[in-house]
Amino acid sequence: MIPSVTSKDVGHKLAEQWPTYVAYLVSFATIGNAWLNHSVITEYLDRADAILLRLNLALLFFVSVLPFPTHMLAAYLSNEGDERIAVTVYGLNLLAISGFIAIVWHYALWQRLVTKDNSEADVRALTSKLDPSLASYAVVIGIGLWRPAVTVGLYFVIALFMIIPFRTVLREVRRSRRS
Amino acid sequence: MIPSVTSKDVGHKLAEQWPTYVAYLVSFATIGNAWLNHSVITEYLDRADAILLRLNLALLFFVSVLPFPTHMLAAYLSNEGDERIAVTVYGLNLLAISGFIAIVWHYALWQRLVTKDNSEADVRALTSKLDPSLASYAVVIGIGLWRPAVTVGLYFVIALFMIIPFRTVLREVRRSRRS
Amino acid sequence: MIPSVTSKDVGHKLAEQWPTYVAYLVSFATIGNAWLNHSVITEYLDRADAILLRLNLALLFFVSVLPFPTHMLAAYLSNEGDERIAVTVYGLNLLAISGFIAIVWHYALWQRLVTKDNSEADVRALTSKLDPSLASYAVVIGIGLWRPAVTVGLYFVIALFMIIPFRTVLREVRRSRRS
Amino acid sequence: MIPSVTSKDVGHKLAEQWPTYVAYLVSFATIGNAWLNHSVITEYLDRADAILLRLNLALLFFVSVLPFPTHMLAAYLSNEGDERIAVTVYGLNLLAISGFIAIVWHYALWQRLVTKDNSEADVRALTSKLDPSLASYAVVIGIGLWRPAVTVGLYFVIALFMIIPFRTVLREVRRSRRS
Repeated sequence: MIPSVTSKDVGHKLAEQWPTYVAYLVSFATIGNAWLNHSVITEYLDRADAILLRLNLALLFFVSVLPFPTHMLAAYLSNEGDERIAVTVYGLNLLAISGFIAIVWHYALWQRLVTKDNSEADVRALTSKLDPSLASYAVVIGIGLWRPAVTVGLYFVIALFMIIPFRTVLREVRRSRRS
Repeated sequence: MIPSVTSKDVGHKLAEQWPTYVAYLVSFATIGNAWLNHSVITEYLDRADAILLRLNLALLFFVSVLPFPTHMLAAYLSNEGDERIAVTVYGLNLLAISGFIAIVWHYALWQRLVTKDNSEADVRALTSKLDPSLASYAVVIGIGLWRPAVTVGLYFVIALFMIIPFRTVLREVRRSRRS
Repeated sequence: MIPSVTSKDVGHKLAEQWPTYVAYLVSFATIGNAWLNHSVITEYLDRADAILLRLNLALLFFVSVLPFPTHMLAAYLSNEGDERIAVTVYGLNLLAISGFIAIVWHYALWQRLVTKDNSEADVRALTSKLDPSLASYAVVIGIGLWRPAVTVGLYFVIALFMIIPFRTVLREVRRSRRS
Repeated sequence: MIPSVTSKDVGHKLAEQWPTYVAYLVSFATIGNAWLNHSVITEYLDRADAILLRLNLALLFFVSVLPFPTHMLAAYLSNEGDERIAVTVYGLNLLAISGFIAIVWHYALWQRLVTKDNSEADVRALTSKLDPSLASYAVVIGIGLWRPAVTVGLYFVIALFMIIPFRTVLREVRRSRRS
């Protein structure tokens, strides 16, 4: 990725690599979000059964595979013809990651593997955000077939929507106003 | 692995890379299975002695080495003459991983390092599956000398046979029928 | 990085690669320091809230990104025209890492997430060193625009200043004199 | 490392890569040994002070750096002129790793950071093997200046001498004879 030393105009060449930085940032935000959700799930987990471990392994598979579509995205993002395939494969990977987080979580709830006091703020935030994020990925993959370039930004917006703890921030703002 | 940007027909070129995807998937399934078995073993382990740590280190060696035969498999899978060597080396590596899981487990049982209540479902599943999987790897390596292309699929079948918790799934299906 | 086998004069070629070694050493020292600070913070943390986890994720982002500017530094360090950009990008990354360590720490103090007995030696060392290190990075980035080659050494000095536990060393020296 | 697909004689080419396999095996054995010693040290550690953490970081530095001399060794091992430099740099790295394990261990003993009951078998094995291994590395580096090719085998012997738990094996053999 680093421009060759002989090039006179390194700053300009680095600026041209923006698709690489964008792809890395979106992938980091998505995996970071998966990690946050995963830590919330494991925190409230009372015990794990054999099936939950396997579902978790499938989630891990799609996380471990993400660098490949990320490289594709970085290589084709400013390229008219090919970015459609890259953006679609990338979106399907993000959908699979979010999908398996949702499956792991719903399986744990269904089998009563979570501890009882799941009325906490971060559990509610997780359940209220998982399904909308899945729907968003499906919609954005559809948009990508028609307008590929826009979708990368939208994937970043979905990741940010998942990561930012709106309720906690709101509560803090209110509390600091009162005091 | 990513086709160059100038190529008109990226989708087709990506499809041609199927050996890479297949090799990655089989390796992921095998290491995932090793991890599941390893977590079952360590869960029921009461204590570890000096020899168990060394056997575990040897297991780790063969896991750490797997990416090399995986790359070989990906490079030679659609290549008549060379795929025999790649498939055999790959199979020997998978056999070594399963072999050392079996050695670690039998050593722990022999030295009474496991806790007493090893009548649990996942311990029984482990002991009942380890030896058949070892025999299967040996047989498939033999088949590979004669028909290399078939074996990769068979390695995937063995990994799936090890991963899928048939008894747990069966019990769940029965329980959901009753209720 | 390894010179080709045909080259007669490998020792000399290896010596010419000094920018690579310097860049690796400075990056290792900086990340090592971040890890030490991070372990002090988590040791005195009573609990983590949703926002602290996100701030920690942002810190992790800038740590995960550091290898890219490190490679740039290694490639351009002995190159008149281009080292200015490399040194500046590298410095901004180091500043971001230290900045987010400071943000995480001050947030934890502000929200009273740390345990009460934060009068320990390593907590005092952390609070007394964080802000000077931030100011130092800002100053050195400025120097880098004017004299790029000097700054790499200065970044190493800052990392060492952060890592070396002066008070503990001093105390040990005094104690060994008395006895 | 993987020979190109067009080559007729892949098996032969793979066999020619023996220096790569040897270098990987010796490095794995050395790092594996460092990990075993490290786990013995941390197991008997009562608490860690600021200086111990820094010494541990220096140990980690030399472990993280080892892949570079390993690659050098693999590239130059069958090459008359250049293998001397590769073997010497590699040996110095192994010496630094063992040296810092010894420093961490002696510091912990000196500062009484270890728990009292350090009369256990693995602690005695550690203290009785650390200093001979250091001396061996120094001697083998000297031999390497004169006969480079032999030393790689000697480094492997040192690692095996450190890893194999002679007393435990002996005790087991005696016990199984009696019963």
